[in-house]
Amino acid sequence: MAAPLQAQTLKGFRDYLPETMAPRQAMIRAIEDTFARHGFLPLQTPALEYEETLMGKYGEEGDKLLYRFEDNGQRRVALRYDLTVPLARVVAQHRAELQLPFRRYHIAPVWRAEKPQRGRFREFLQCDADIAGVNSPLADAEVLVTGLQVLRSLGVEGARLHLNHRDVLFGLLELRGVTEKPQQIACIRAVDKLDKIGAAGVVAEIVREAQLDTQAAEQVVAAFAPGGGLKDLQQTVAVAGDSAPVLKQAVERLEAVLALVAAAGLADLITVDVSIARGLDYYTGIIYETRLTDPKVASMGAVMSGGRYDGLIGLFSKEQVPAVGISLGLDRLLAALQELGLLPTHLARVPVYVAVMDSQVAGHALHVAGLLRAAGLRAEVDLGGGKLGKQFERASKRGAQVVLVLGSDEVASQSAVVKDLGSGQQTPVSWTELPAFVASLLT
Amino acid sequence: MAAPLQAQTLKGFRDYLPETMAPRQAMIRAIEDTFARHGFLPLQTPALEYEETLMGKYGEEGDKLLYRFEDNGQRRVALRYDLTVPLARVVAQHRAELQLPFRRYHIAPVWRAEKPQRGRFREFLQCDADIAGVNSPLADAEVLVTGLQVLRSLGVEGARLHLNHRDVLFGLLELRGVTEKPQQIACIRAVDKLDKIGAAGVVAEIVREAQLDTQAAEQVVAAFAPGGGLKDLQQTVAVAGDSAPVLKQAVERLEAVLALVAAAGLADLITVDVSIARGLDYYTGIIYETRLTDPKVASMGAVMSGGRYDGLIGLFSKEQVPAVGISLGLDRLLAALQELGLLPTHLARVPVYVAVMDSQVAGHALHVAGLLRAAGLRAEVDLGGGKLGKQFERASKRGAQVVLVLGSDEVASQSAVVKDLGSGQQTPVSWTELPAFVASLLT
Repeated sequence: MAAPLQAQTLKGFRDYLPETMAPRQAMIRAIEDTFARHGFLPLQTPALEYEETLMGKYGEEGDKLLYRFEDNGQRRVALRYDLTVPLARVVAQHRAELQLPFRRYHIAPVWRAEKPQRGRFREFLQCDADIAGVNSPLADAEVLVTGLQVLRSLGVEGARLHLNHRDVLFGLLELRGVTEKPQQIACIRAVDKLDKIGAAGVVAEIVREAQLDTQAAEQVVAAFAPGGGLKDLQQTVAVAGDSAPVLKQAVERLEAVLALVAAAGLADLITVDVSIARGLDYYTGIIYETRLTDPKVASMGAVMSGGRYDGLIGLFSKEQVPAVGISLGLDRLLAALQELGLLPTHLARVPVYVAVMDSQVAGHALHVAGLLRAAGLRAEVDLGGGKLGKQFERASKRGAQVVLVLGSDEVASQSAVVKDLGSGQQTPVSWTELPAFVASLLT
Repeated sequence: MAAPLQAQTLKGFRDYLPETMAPRQAMIRAIEDTFARHGFLPLQTPALEYEETLMGKYGEEGDKLLYRFEDNGQRRVALRYDLTVPLARVVAQHRAELQLPFRRYHIAPVWRAEKPQRGRFREFLQCDADIAGVNSPLADAEVLVTGLQVLRSLGVEGARLHLNHRDVLFGLLELRGVTEKPQQIACIRAVDKLDKIGAAGVVAEIVREAQLDTQAAEQVVAAFAPGGGLKDLQQTVAVAGDSAPVLKQAVERLEAVLALVAAAGLADLITVDVSIARGLDYYTGIIYETRLTDPKVASMGAVMSGGRYDGLIGLFSKEQVPAVGISLGLDRLLAALQELGLLPTHLARVPVYVAVMDSQVAGHALHVAGLLRAAGLRAEVDLGGGKLGKQFERASKRGAQVVLVLGSDEVASQSAVVKDLGSGQQTPVSWTELPAFVASLLT
């Protein structure tokens, strides 16, 4: 016989076994429900897109991370890198069928050939909610409120949304004499890497890519130091006066958005932070990242981020359609919760176990399991056979709470013996009363 | 300005807009719930696998349909073709962490570069439930019962599961003098294409691939004509006596499985059909396909199929682990329901619409929407602005049932005017009573 094939997952990819997948799925449902309550409707798009749909949207470094190849029909294709560019394509392609504002949510895996590290995978689930068709503070706020409520619905404590605006970045650069667009973009991309490469690395990159001298680069880095909040910005605007109209408008937008989020009762979860840069090229308005505050997992980076991108849909259409969105990285959040020991694992246990005394009663066991399942209870039928003691052992090892025993006597009287593994109590119960009785033991 | 990029999906791929995605997602949840009630736990695996994990498992023709490529790290990788081979890999790879029997369900897209046709896509969602670790009629029946209950939970009427056994195929071939394994396999692969290429095509393929003469090939095709059921098989066994031990055992297995499915009350949804061949190489025991009986969609082919594959896991491990499973092709089923006009589209409407009189009350509108959302209601806030009449028009066009109006008077009195778009009735309601009142209008 041939040696067995090696059973292995690709680097940066992972299997979600029931222990992790069961709580992950409960989280997905909670996210779907929260998105739906906030007026978003579900959308699903293909994993594969034409390469030209995706290329050139994520900046040079993003493009490098795309999984690209030629399919059997000699088409250049790529696995989606995010859910935002596919949304832009959808709005352009199906414009006639869609009503604006189009509020959609989309929960699906995306693929990036990044260097795997703690909490960072090459395949991960994004949970996005976006509004296409409106550029207003209210649209921005609707999306932020939705995202923050999603975190609440997941029981995530200690998260904070760091809000900024692309024009704050441009405005502050202008005030420092960096006025050429390519230079500004190079600075923003460098600042976005502060967490990854440190202040010295950012300075070096700005010198290299934006051709500033070291002193100017250091001033740029200082201007975007973490912690710079709304008050600092308001002061800068007050000092600069009319010489910084772009910055002034951006700060007014931030104020309006913050006021709306506060009206929704979520002021304490949001803060302005000038250090937020977002590397992706397509953002045009507000931008944000949400970080966990627990020091044990703070280094994992942003768990929910996004922004406004008013130019992206127009790349696929003659019509300009403004849009804003939020994206939750569920797998990173899951990894953090796992690390904090906050993942409920009981979901990966089947609470009811139906023992099978011998093959003569197997059909009846299936019938009785069917009664419980029809009543919404989760039940599995023993498939290992053997003595009753063995079956009880198996049930207990698998984490069952209740075991049903059916012998020929029970079948004759249409009943079953119900054993509560917690209390040890055994009760004979008729088939008709079985679902209610078992349910009462589980609650 | 550059001409816009063409917004297009790849051939054989499709977007699920909310109108279709909302009912699709409700179906996915119903399937998950039914799988869970039947004691299956969720599993998720990567979309990409090592090429060698997948190659050679689906027969020559299946291998051709794989999306294969070299990734950025020069690894040969492939998009998963089904969820069964990944399960086999998982059981082998995580054997120490898993308890047998391992009952898992897995709902995820798979990719096959097939010729697109009605109800057949290159990316489609598979919904699988499998039991690894046991070879018994009860395990077979548990899986069949689960699949049939899934169809019931989806409200699918007029479906029938056609059951067969690989050894019925081998046994009948032996009785007709086709005793060499490669010849047998060639015959089975040809018979599996009856729907696609017709009887004459199957005969031609058998002549070509199994080197039988035309008469013998015609006899093979006749032996596997659709409609041949359990009674015919029992008769064949009775006539053949001990000269067909393989066939005899297979028929006994079918009888045992049928008896168990009948005990679960599902006898009328299942039938033995000797024409079921299943092209995939890895099956070793029972095999089945489920077809819709409505003539309008019957040509779409199987919507739920599977079988027993006791050798597959052993390809990845020194340990042989028997397994059996069922796979529902949700997108084909969805296309069929859509064609039959059975898809509920009301799920793609947000029932509550919150009008915004002017930007002064926008924060209060968000607050009130938050009250409804916290109570579990789906609500969207108007983002278009303009006169109230315009906002009502928008609400009605989007299919809302209830519109909330908030002006400065209402804000002062912490109330809102609730308009039922069905009856036209308007009622002023205080914020505290709002969730209950609106909910009463929606039920």
